[in-house]
Amino acid sequence: MKLLRVGPPGEERPAVLDEAGRARDLRGLLGHEADFDGAFFASGQTARIANALLSDELPLLGGDGITGTPESRIGPPIARPGKIVCIGLNYRDHAEETGAALPTEPIIFMKAPNTVVGPGDEVLIPRGSVKTDWEVELAVVIGATARYLGSHQEALACVAGYAVSNDVSEREFQLERGGQWDKGKSCETFNPLGPWLVTADEVPDPQSLGLRLWVNGEVRQDGDTKNMIFGVAEVVRYVSQFMVLEPGDVINTGTPAGVALGMPDHPYLRKGDVVELEIDGLGRQRQIVGQA
Amino acid sequence: MKLLRVGPPGEERPAVLDEAGRARDLRGLLGHEADFDGAFFASGQTARIANALLSDELPLLGGDGITGTPESRIGPPIARPGKIVCIGLNYRDHAEETGAALPTEPIIFMKAPNTVVGPGDEVLIPRGSVKTDWEVELAVVIGATARYLGSHQEALACVAGYAVSNDVSEREFQLERGGQWDKGKSCETFNPLGPWLVTADEVPDPQSLGLRLWVNGEVRQDGDTKNMIFGVAEVVRYVSQFMVLEPGDVINTGTPAGVALGMPDHPYLRKGDVVELEIDGLGRQRQIVGQA
Repeated sequence: MKLLRVGPPGEERPAVLDEAGRARDLRGLLGHEADFDGAFFASGQTARIANALLSDELPLLGGDGITGTPESRIGPPIARPGKIVCIGLNYRDHAEETGAALPTEPIIFMKAPNTVVGPGDEVLIPRGSVKTDWEVELAVVIGATARYLGSHQEALACVAGYAVSNDVSEREFQLERGGQWDKGKSCETFNPLGPWLVTADEVPDPQSLGLRLWVNGEVRQDGDTKNMIFGVAEVVRYVSQFMVLEPGDVINTGTPAGVALGMPDHPYLRKGDVVELEIDGLGRQRQIVGQA
Repeated sequence: MKLLRVGPPGEERPAVLDEAGRARDLRGLLGHEADFDGAFFASGQTARIANALLSDELPLLGGDGITGTPESRIGPPIARPGKIVCIGLNYRDHAEETGAALPTEPIIFMKAPNTVVGPGDEVLIPRGSVKTDWEVELAVVIGATARYLGSHQEALACVAGYAVSNDVSEREFQLERGGQWDKGKSCETFNPLGPWLVTADEVPDPQSLGLRLWVNGEVRQDGDTKNMIFGVAEVVRYVSQFMVLEPGDVINTGTPAGVALGMPDHPYLRKGDVVELEIDGLGRQRQIVGQA
């Protein structure tokens, strides 16, 4: 299934796409206070949604559905995550373009949870920034508590689903302002997520997904998750040795080559630029770059 | 005022200490669903609490108050923070003991929000850890949204209050396992917080607080916030240039010298060790170390 949240920022309603690509309202089924948050994923209600969808019980979301008008903005597919864990340099070609050594075990850093915005929301260049960069990534949404997992099978059982993520990064803040990457990863609007969460049952092999990103129509990144150094199952297993992952948490699993940092002329983002990104089967994002 | 949360993990009730040091129940005043979370701090209800306390309207918390029996465990003084931002190497003597250069601007890293536990809860040595370390720190709790703050005055106006924090750290995970510190900072139980949040009006100068930590009765850290390289106002102002701070967020402002990493024999924590820590006017913590 494709789960999504539709409405103005902070007032999104949970919905599910039907076979015709229309958004079906889930408030009647789940309750008017329900949202796609940690409690939802922990409750295992996706089977209920699937059944209701099959039996055609769900009303169309009011108005014109998800045609992209302001009335039907698509928000991030999950409410505020408990944490966003990121894996650094997880594609060989990206590690090489940054001049870094290949990691021998996953590099972990974090992004503030309030960076999450919708897939079509504006991305803001921070004040004082001259090196704002893009990173298309496969996001893993956690569906069950993960603590000291023992196997890849256990790890995949903790995955609720997948989404497209733009791990927007300010390279000067990240690399030249004090030594820890987090400083360039947590700026306002720095994590467009969505358009939807595709449940794990519809992504049989997370290691065979093409992922691409364009800036102003020019392709910049064109990779495949088969080239991850550490695959999804290993990433989830590994991270669970160092922290407790909870339902609704997000892991950004790293980006392939093609970021501005790695290009000869470093064409960092400027106000007015248009960034588009997509992953096979997970949908497409489009952001216009603004100035904070 | 001293705000605290009393009860079993996940079922804490908001309370306030009266002049006699007894916990007064705030559920009647604030509503039975109320908690010390982002919404509470954003709502500016501390004045209401102060008035109710003055006019002696608040009932004693049931049972034996806060005498430390299991029925009256003290939890962390705030519900799950939106994020925990940490400042690295922010005391000259600690930077020197680790062999690091003095930072020219604040070093920012992050800790997973689900590391927060009560001030007397068990701290667990992670599986596979041999270098679990302590760090007494002044925690700043944010009370108002902070975004691109322009002055130290604006920064201090965004502070709801202060608390004692133990920024527990696994040094091998932090420093020898892939290059970003976050890996050694986010393990389960790694952020004892409390016993209470002391509101900012009762801490006229956050840069003149002694802070101390003992292991098994031996003093290990004995510092003063006057020796911070970057004070609270500068830290809050600075962080707000890189991310949006929100009510209920926590900043751990760094630790003075005396951690195991900096001692000649590196006496890292072992199961059964007792860690005690305190900050002038902010109360005292005591943790028994266990094994995950």
